Formats: sequence, C-alpha cells, structure tokens
Amino acid sequence: MKKNVLVIGAGGVAQVTAHKCAQNNDVLGDIHIASRTVSKCRDIIASIHEKKSMKVDGVLEAHALDALDVEATKALIARTGAQIVINLGSAFVNMSVLQACIETGAAYIDTAIHEDPLKICENPPWYGNYEWKRREACAAAGVTAILGAGFDPGVVNAYAALLVRDWMDETDSLDIIDVNAGSHGKWFATNFDPEINFREFTGQVWSWQNRQWTSNQMFEIRKEWDLPVVGASTTYMTGHDEIHSLSKNLDVPNIRFWMGFGDHYINVFTVLKNLGLLSEQPVRTAEGVEVAPLKVVKAVLPDPSSLAKDYTGKTCIGVLAKGRKDGKDAEALIYQISDHKEAFEEVGSQGISYTAGVPAAAAALLIATGEWDAKTMVNVEELPAEPFINLLNRIGLPSRVKDAAGDRDLAF
Amino acid sequence: MKKNVLVIGAGGVAQVTAHKCAQNNDVLGDIHIASRTVSKCRDIIASIHEKKSMKVDGVLEAHALDALDVEATKALIARTGAQIVINLGSAFVNMSVLQACIETGAAYIDTAIHEDPLKICENPPWYGNYEWKRREACAAAGVTAILGAGFDPGVVNAYAALLVRDWMDETDSLDIIDVNAGSHGKWFATNFDPEINFREFTGQVWSWQNRQWTSNQMFEIRKEWDLPVVGASTTYMTGHDEIHSLSKNLDVPNIRFWMGFGDHYINVFTVLKNLGLLSEQPVRTAEGVEVAPLKVVKAVLPDPSSLAKDYTGKTCIGVLAKGRKDGKDAEALIYQISDHKEAFEEVGSQGISYTAGVPAAAAALLIATGEWDAKTMVNVEELPAEPFINLLNRIGLPSRVKDAAGDRDLAF
Repeated sequence: MKKNVLVIGAGGVAQVTAHKCAQNNDVLGDIHIASRTVSKCRDIIASIHEKKSMKVDGVLEAHALDALDVEATKALIARTGAQIVINLGSAFVNMSVLQACIETGAAYIDTAIHEDPLKICENPPWYGNYEWKRREACAAAGVTAILGAGFDPGVVNAYAALLVRDWMDETDSLDIIDVNAGSHGKWFATNFDPEINFREFTGQVWSWQNRQWTSNQMFEIRKEWDLPVVGASTTYMTGHDEIHSLSKNLDVPNIRFWMGFGDHYINVFTVLKNLGLLSEQPVRTAEGVEVAPLKVVKAVLPDPSSLAKDYTGKTCIGVLAKGRKDGKDAEALIYQISDHKEAFEEVGSQGISYTAGVPAAAAALLIATGEWDAKTMVNVEELPAEPFINLLNRIGLPSRVKDAAGDRDLAF
Repeated sequence: MKKNVLVIGAGGVAQVTAHKCAQNNDVLGDIHIASRTVSKCRDIIASIHEKKSMKVDGVLEAHALDALDVEATKALIARTGAQIVINLGSAFVNMSVLQACIETGAAYIDTAIHEDPLKICENPPWYGNYEWKRREACAAAGVTAILGAGFDPGVVNAYAALLVRDWMDETDSLDIIDVNAGSHGKWFATNFDPEINFREFTGQVWSWQNRQWTSNQMFEIRKEWDLPVVGASTTYMTGHDEIHSLSKNLDVPNIRFWMGFGDHYINVFTVLKNLGLLSEQPVRTAEGVEVAPLKVVKAVLPDPSSLAKDYTGKTCIGVLAKGRKDGKDAEALIYQISDHKEAFEEVGSQGISYTAGVPAAAAALLIATGEWDAKTMVNVEELPAEPFINLLNRIGLPSRVKDAAGDRDLAF
C-alpha cells in the first residue's frame, strides 16, 4: 500500500489527473503538483477547489520544480513524502524523473515515451532506446514503474491484452484506432502543443507487420473505419509507442496504429511542411532575426488550452482484433467514447486531455491498493486488465465491446 | 533630346531594363545602375557583359545609393549627368526619387505606384494619394514624369487607349487580363518579393464598375478565360494601379483587372493568411523572439531571383474591350505573349521581369528621341501609343490583336 501523490507537469493532462487524484484522495492521501511554472500548478489547484473535486479534506499543494534536475526532484519527493510520482511533464524529463524515483523508492507512472530534444521521432525500438534500459535498476530497487499509462498507450494496451487472451485463440492483427470527432470551432488548431503535435507527423511512421518493423511516410496509408457513435472516420497509419511494447509482449504478427485526421488538417499540415515552416532549424529573416519557423507557427496558432471551453463532440479510441476463435474467423472491438463538453464541465479540460489523464490517476489508485504495485518496470499490457477496466468504468472512462455477440458495456 | 540613363534598383526587373538600355546605348548614352546594395548592380553589369548586351562601347557603372535620400539621389544624377532616371527600386522610394528629378530636371520613369510602408494596400484613388499631387510641380519645372511604364500598368494602358480610340465608337468595358502560364518547378514560390506579392492580395480589391469604385474581397470573384496560346485560364478580380488612371483618362464605365492564379497558389495563400502567417505585426515566440510572421514566410520561400533559370512556359497579358462599333456589338483583344526561357537566355531574368522591364527601357528611348518627352507628369495612356507599340515589337515584346477580322500582329 502506497500513498501521497506527486504530479509533475501542469498542462491539460496534468489538470485532469490532478482532479481525478483529488476525487480519490481518501485512498491516495496528499496531492502535490509540481512544474517549472508554479503559477500553472496554482491554477490547477484553484480549478480543483472551484469544482469541489477534493473528496475529503487533505493536503493539496503547488511546487516549483525543474524536473530535469534529479537532485531537486528527489528532494521534493522526500519533502512531500510522495510514494507515487505521476510524470506528466514534457517528454524530455522522463529519464530524470525515473532516476529520482529509483533513488528514492517512489513508484513511477508516465504516459508517453522519453524523447531526446535533439532527436525528432526516433526509430523503434522506442522503449528500448531509454526506458527498458532502466528495467533491471527498477527491479533491483523494487521500484514500480508503469510506462505509458494514459489512453494510448495505456488503456489500449489493456484492451489488446484482453482481446488476445479472451476473444481470440490466434490473433492475426491488432488495429489501434484513435479518432477525435470533436470540433474546437477554430479555423485551425492543434489539440496539444503544436511543436509536439507536428513533430509526431514529420517523419517516417512505423508499424509492426508480418512480425517486422515496416516504415512508411506519414499520411501515406489511409484507412476508413465505421466506428461506434462517431461513425465513418478517416485515419492514417501513424507510429505510436504501444506498437513497440505490444509487439514484444503479445504474440501478434500485425500491430498498427491509426490516427484520425480530416482533410483540412492534412492540407494545412502539408502546406506548412512543404514550405519549410515546420522546421526546427532556425532561419534568418532579411532583417537578421534568427528564429525556428516552427516556433513562429506555434506563436500564431491558438493556445491548445484555450480550445477546451468551446470544444464539442466526441472521441472514440479502441482496439480492433482479428483472428480465429474456436476454429472460426473472429473479430472484436473494445472501445471508449468520451465527450469534450462533459470533460470540460467536470474537470476544465477537453476530451483528449481527459482520456489521457484519467488512466494515469487510475494507475496511481491501483498502485495505492497494491493491485498494480509490480515492484519492477512494466508496460500496461503486463498488468491485470480487469481492475483497471472496472476502475475506469467507475471514474469516467467506461469501456464497451463490440463483437459477434453485440455491442455492450465491458466490465468484470 | 535627352540622354544618359540612371537605373535605380537592382532586382529582376532592373536587370531586364539595364540589359535593354545597354542594347540601345547608341541612343541612350551612358548607363548607370544604383542600389543600396552595390554588389547587385555589379552582378547586373557582369551579366550585361556576359551576354554582350552593350550595342556600342560606352559607360556602364554601378553606384551605391539610398534612394530615400533625396540629396544623395540629386548628387548622383548630377555626377552621372543622367537626364533620364528609371526608378525600379522598392515602391517606397517613388516620391523621393521623383523629388530628386523635379529638383534636377531629369526625366522620371517608374512602373508601379508609390506605397507608404506603414499603409498596406491603400484605397483608390491610388495615383491621387501621392503621384498626381506632384503633377503641377513637374509641369512648372518642365520635368517629364511617366508613371507606370511597365507592362501592367504601362503597355496595357496603351492597349486600352488604342482599343477605345480605334476599335470602338462606344466602349462598355475594359478587362485587363494577366496570366502567367509558366512553371518554376518548385512546390511553391512567389514570382517577386513574397512580402510585396502577398500584401497585394491580403485586403480588399477595387474595380471600376458603372463608373464607381466597387470593393470586393480578394479571391471573391473568379472568371475563366480562353486566351491565345496559353488557353483556358482561371483568374480572380484584383485591384491594380492602372484601373485608377484609366478610369480618369478614358470614358469607359467598367474597368477591371484579372490576375491568373492556380488553385494551388490560392490554397497555400489561404492557409498562410488564415493562420496569421502573412501578418506584418510581430508575434513573440515562447522563447521571447519578436518577429513578423510574414518575414519568416519570406525567409523560407525560394528567392524569386533563383526561379529564373528553370522557368518554362509563357505569359499572356492583354486588354479585352467590349462595346459598339458602327452600330454593332464589337469585341477586341490586344495582347502579348512572352516566353520565360527565351527571356532568361537573352537577359538572365524570367518572363515576368522581362515584360515589366522592357517597357521601362522603351519609355526611356522614347524620351530620348523626344516622342514621349512630355515635360509634365503623364500616365502611359496619355502618350502616343503607336511609337511605343512599334518599338516594343522591335525590342522583344511584340503585340498582337484578335478581333472580328482575325488574330494578327499589331503594328503601325
């Protein structure tokens, strides 16, 4: 049994996680929020009080922290007595925060792979580049480190494990499908930091096909789906963290990730990319100003956090498995529908932040109760899926399944 | 009879004009080229020597000049003995160069209206905003000032005057049509300074309809034409200098300007404009760099001068008149076809610079011979068209006419 949570980061996802931790602080104990910009932590705390998210009276504090500084992070863990650290900072701080956890014994949770700021969109094996190199150190220290515990990666890893175990005897393919059918009402905006958003789509994309890494260009492979609730959806094959861990942990020859994009997004992206405006390499204007074009694009685009209040519509994220069961072809989709407006009303963030932030709080709760306190480094598909799915059903992300037997709630 | 020419400016158009002056230096005398960046003048001089453009041995010199500095410009006019100044510098220097001419007695030629750098796309009356306020000063000093002596404005003004005088008894409409059917081979590029290019299309566009100024949004009014040589062409109604002077000097109720744009250009323009990337107002990046997005767009786009060597295809610029002649409906198009590759081979510039630069040299020649030495400020439609058309036929821009009698060369 572990308690007291330190949330690192103060963006839209951190806001959701902090609200969910507060709503369950009878189990989790003290809640601390740390970021380089302490005012953003205070804003989240104000939002938690405004929405009356604290289940019981308790500690809720803001801290200034440079999470690249391992010693400072260790000191904050010690000072707060946090036994669970939820790292929702930029992708660049994963390894320093993990190191602080290994040295203090605190459990570690994150939602996305580590990135080196100097290397854009590294090639697989993604977890092998940084995270898994620390697995033995975690095991030796008895430290629980849960990697990729957002929605995708995260919940979809649990869906994939369930589908392979219970719905199939032999699984041919897993297709992870992420569609945002919502509308922010702006002519164009990215749903999260444009710099990170565009970086994801600038290079090659990787998929696991015929048990091999396969490379394509972004927006090269398009696929239409007919999904529950959101209906007909256009997606493109994209590289994504969980393809790597699932390809190692599940015996499935084809694992692909599909992200929904409208024609308008792709057109704007294509124009910006082809003109060189998504480059991180500085250019020099005729007046002698040196600036990376991508930074200027970021400066003119709407601040993603400003979108939440007007966001309407729904998201659908799921995993479609195809294979054979009892000697027959079989197909099953486990999925989750979230609503942008409901998310904003509950926790002040839009649906995309909501789907990423709730599972991280769920992972913290399962560590607190001991069900996921693995004492080593794991990806979500290696942990028991049932308590996770049941907990998510209760705290805001109900799952459903659609198979030959129909379309119904998923619970255990 | 005037002689010795000072070309101010050293861009693509100036390069063409300088070559054409050199090809006719037996009439024009000494040729001087001045620009803030003297190395660009020297490059033009090297190009003139490389192409053996000097008709007879003579003076060909480069000078550094800030053309906003009236005293410095006067001093250079005096030092060079130039009696004809061809102003092809930025649109911001027109009034200072004109002032230097008025004070020294040199003849003045330009190819585009004056612009205040702080006022983007001013409303009509364009020539009335700056140029025509100096008309009396020119007349008093006996100074010849020919406004807008490129192709459009310039040659099209002569076409318009001829059509109204010789092809119509009553003219209902003049449509000036400018189509570049060439290809530069880049994914996207502007044919001249992106800053100037995009500024032209950012605001309202003005046309003269039913004897009134009429305002529309850029890209609001589209029209397809079937033009000689270049064929089917998509154009959009645009504001343009010559609409103003023609509406004053010719008795025609409808005068419109149509610029050819492909869907690709419009898409890129629309994305950049809607994102705010064409703004001249500085934005501040997250890192604290202050920069106008338009300057960054300019920095990432190909340098227009780099396009010339690979440019292929043709331009078509003409004026279509509709009205009545001898009691019957009548229609006539006077037009000119230029070829990008031929222009580059002759003078090292692409066809758009060629069509703008040759007429300015022709105007200088007609001042030198006395035919256009008006001793006051005039627009091209106020001058005799025949020697201009005949001279252009000889020096690289042959005109044609298409009317009920057929499609044939135009000469007098």
